Amino acid sequence: MQNHAAASPLLTDLYQLTMAYGYWKTGTHEREAVFHLFFRKPPFASGYSLVAGLADVIDWLRAFHFDEDELAYLQTLEGNDGSPLFEEGFIDYLRELKFTCEVDAVPEGTVVFPHEPLLRVQGPILQGQLVETALLNLINYQTLIATKAARICEAAQDEPVLEFGLRRAQGVDGALAASRAAYIGGCAATSNVLAGKLFGIPVKGTHAHSWVMSFDSEPEAFQAYADAMPNNCVFLVDTYDTLDGVRAAIEVGKRLRETGHEMVGVRLDSGDLAYLSIEARKLLDAAGFPDAVIVASNDLDETIIASLKQQGAKIGLWGVGTKLVTAFDQPALGGVYKLGAIRDGAGNWQYRLKLSEQSIKVSNPGILQVRRFVQDGLIAGDQIINEGEGGETSRTIVDPADSMRRKRVTAEASEELLLQPIFRNGELVYDRPTLEETKAHARAELSRTHPGIRRLLNPHEYPVGLGPQLHELKHKLIQQARGEAPGA
Amino acid sequence: MQNHAAASPLLTDLYQLTMAYGYWKTGTHEREAVFHLFFRKPPFASGYSLVAGLADVIDWLRAFHFDEDELAYLQTLEGNDGSPLFEEGFIDYLRELKFTCEVDAVPEGTVVFPHEPLLRVQGPILQGQLVETALLNLINYQTLIATKAARICEAAQDEPVLEFGLRRAQGVDGALAASRAAYIGGCAATSNVLAGKLFGIPVKGTHAHSWVMSFDSEPEAFQAYADAMPNNCVFLVDTYDTLDGVRAAIEVGKRLRETGHEMVGVRLDSGDLAYLSIEARKLLDAAGFPDAVIVASNDLDETIIASLKQQGAKIGLWGVGTKLVTAFDQPALGGVYKLGAIRDGAGNWQYRLKLSEQSIKVSNPGILQVRRFVQDGLIAGDQIINEGEGGETSRTIVDPADSMRRKRVTAEASEELLLQPIFRNGELVYDRPTLEETKAHARAELSRTHPGIRRLLNPHEYPVGLGPQLHELKHKLIQQARGEAPGA
Repeated sequence: MQNHAAASPLLTDLYQLTMAYGYWKTGTHEREAVFHLFFRKPPFASGYSLVAGLADVIDWLRAFHFDEDELAYLQTLEGNDGSPLFEEGFIDYLRELKFTCEVDAVPEGTVVFPHEPLLRVQGPILQGQLVETALLNLINYQTLIATKAARICEAAQDEPVLEFGLRRAQGVDGALAASRAAYIGGCAATSNVLAGKLFGIPVKGTHAHSWVMSFDSEPEAFQAYADAMPNNCVFLVDTYDTLDGVRAAIEVGKRLRETGHEMVGVRLDSGDLAYLSIEARKLLDAAGFPDAVIVASNDLDETIIASLKQQGAKIGLWGVGTKLVTAFDQPALGGVYKLGAIRDGAGNWQYRLKLSEQSIKVSNPGILQVRRFVQDGLIAGDQIINEGEGGETSRTIVDPADSMRRKRVTAEASEELLLQPIFRNGELVYDRPTLEETKAHARAELSRTHPGIRRLLNPHEYPVGLGPQLHELKHKLIQQARGEAPGA
Repeated sequence: MQNHAAASPLLTDLYQLTMAYGYWKTGTHEREAVFHLFFRKPPFASGYSLVAGLADVIDWLRAFHFDEDELAYLQTLEGNDGSPLFEEGFIDYLRELKFTCEVDAVPEGTVVFPHEPLLRVQGPILQGQLVETALLNLINYQTLIATKAARICEAAQDEPVLEFGLRRAQGVDGALAASRAAYIGGCAATSNVLAGKLFGIPVKGTHAHSWVMSFDSEPEAFQAYADAMPNNCVFLVDTYDTLDGVRAAIEVGKRLRETGHEMVGVRLDSGDLAYLSIEARKLLDAAGFPDAVIVASNDLDETIIASLKQQGAKIGLWGVGTKLVTAFDQPALGGVYKLGAIRDGAGNWQYRLKLSEQSIKVSNPGILQVRRFVQDGLIAGDQIINEGEGGETSRTIVDPADSMRRKRVTAEASEELLLQPIFRNGELVYDRPTLEETKAHARAELSRTHPGIRRLLNPHEYPVGLGPQLHELKHKLIQQARGEAPGA
């Protein structure tokens, strides 16, 4: 976590603290509970998502501790009668509080689907509650951006995508977290120098319109740039007239070549990128610059890139900013964090769910894990299981929205478990991958995801659902909660 | 600035550094230049915007300094031939670099309009360039959120709006900056405890579904909460059946009253909020709780709030999260930062603009300031002027998109200048207002903005444009740049 002030247990909603207080007052605060973090709908109507944010979650949880300054602030909070919201005894409890939970999570860069737990927190209910909001913030945003980046890179096919979003990102940390998540999702580099320094991401950049405007003419501006930095020349050609700009770049490129340097390319940042790139390509090729790359930017996203490709645009490098880092047109992943189980006074697990009028919004009870089946080198289906009851023997996957819809995975498919141990008794037990390893993992994950699932529009629906035993448990609990069964 | 790592001059795009290097190499790095930060289109098709972010800009600029760690990172960067991107002499220059610019800005909480400079940086071109990206990041996002919050509060009329966005915000700092900007824009409180501590914003919250789910029944959960925190009771009633939940809350509210406490209200977080709030109101009133407030949440924004109001919803307090802090459905303000003037070798100002095929996208040349006219207690028009030529005598405002369209402000109108001195020779000269003062300023600004301009849908278009002299200058420069005039 790069945001030191944010490495605070106060990075939470007040109601987590008032509930924690409630548990403490009722003496149930150390009762063991299990929470799951998941989302119900993939962003951008995508066929898959790429999970990210765990690295920051780990840093935040390792730093979890209330300091005096934070406790003093909590002591200033008042209820509606003007008396303190929290008793002194609770403040003392928080002062001594150590994070002791078990956390299991899906590693960053893994392809994930709706309803599956991305993160599971098991331990004293008070702790599980206090960490909810920060975990949601970190996983929601970074998963959203990694997914958006993967989609944009999918659209760009094998051509590199650069992340240029800092100036339009939602806050400083939004930009930094976005640069990292975009890199996991497939971007080749960022313009954000601080992200480069903090995370080791390659940084790229040449010049802006203001460089050109600061000179009396465009050719003069290009020549001055080439003189200053002959080994980093991508000329931005659209300050005045784009194709005149390309011609000016070519002249400077010829002089560069005489001095033993090669112009990297030109950048288009406005206008009809399909037309202009085709014309620019002709000019560059005719002038003996077939290897000069045409970089394009200007409000690009996967839809526009796919459209430009279809129009035969001669763009070899894509600069993507605003729509990537703000996750246009879905700026939030609706991840939630729900109680799945709690031990009763006798120590037995009680499974819990939150009802909803829509079946698909009813949360899943249990201590959940995900079995992923892999066949012929492709992921073939995900089965959510309840480890509290020993898991599932069947390989059938029941659609949570329609229990009549079931997929049977064959015996030949291999299986793996998605949730990995991260913390045990509050201690980190996970061997953290490097960012490059995470990026490589994401690439491998995408390559074993069928192209139909990766398709940008109307993707194939990947089979993800409940094991039959979990389905039965959920069905029984819903009936009980609705008063339809004798157990109600 | 709460994000310490981000208080770094490396919070920038690489091209700012390569351009800085270019200026240094060409010996023009200390040539005086003027940059303006402005946006071209208001977010959300709003009739006005509320500017925010200056407080963080000030902190970032005051901390502007390259430390050894940062310089060492820059020394590792390479060009396409594998040699260092930057010469040692440039690294030495950055090591000694002090921020010496003059910065003028529109105070936070001021109502602003397209094309007006929100911030002006005047000084050595190298410095003006290096600070661009961070300034854009900070002003773009916070202005967006303050504006969104103002619109949401407008929809809620006089009823309080609480900001609940942390869990879905774009990053940690996105959440913190959003809480602050939302408070400036009119929100009454936040759920974000860290924002409460850092900025002194009131914090609010009671309990979530997980509290209810952790008990065997909803009445038991409410009673336990009331026992723990009798002075902070807003019961979330939709975990199972909403109106049954209201009935359970009423029973607990009666017992609370016997002990001398008053239930604050109930919260609805799903379902048909219009219908449920009306029914809940009836139940509460009939049971003797006419003062119990009905809080609503669940993906609210100004459009949904206005619709609920129109349907007669009995909601007295609005909890707004995702759509506020992510600025749905426009997650970025397209603020830009353009060169307006630069001194030539002889020390004379050369005015600059960036051309575009669309007149409205051509930037304004000069050393800009904004004259705001006020008549009958309402803002009446904004005239952008060039201080480099001594400003304007005329009160005519020329529409930058259509020079035939002109507004003449009467002699009775008073006038004020929007840009205030913030830094002089790199030193802070601005008496920073408190957050409460900024919030009060925003309220006053909105109250002198005609309701037609504040209207959520199809607002009245506020007159903002160029003074006639600036219009003439711009026209001449466009002709020159397009080669239409002898001066080309």
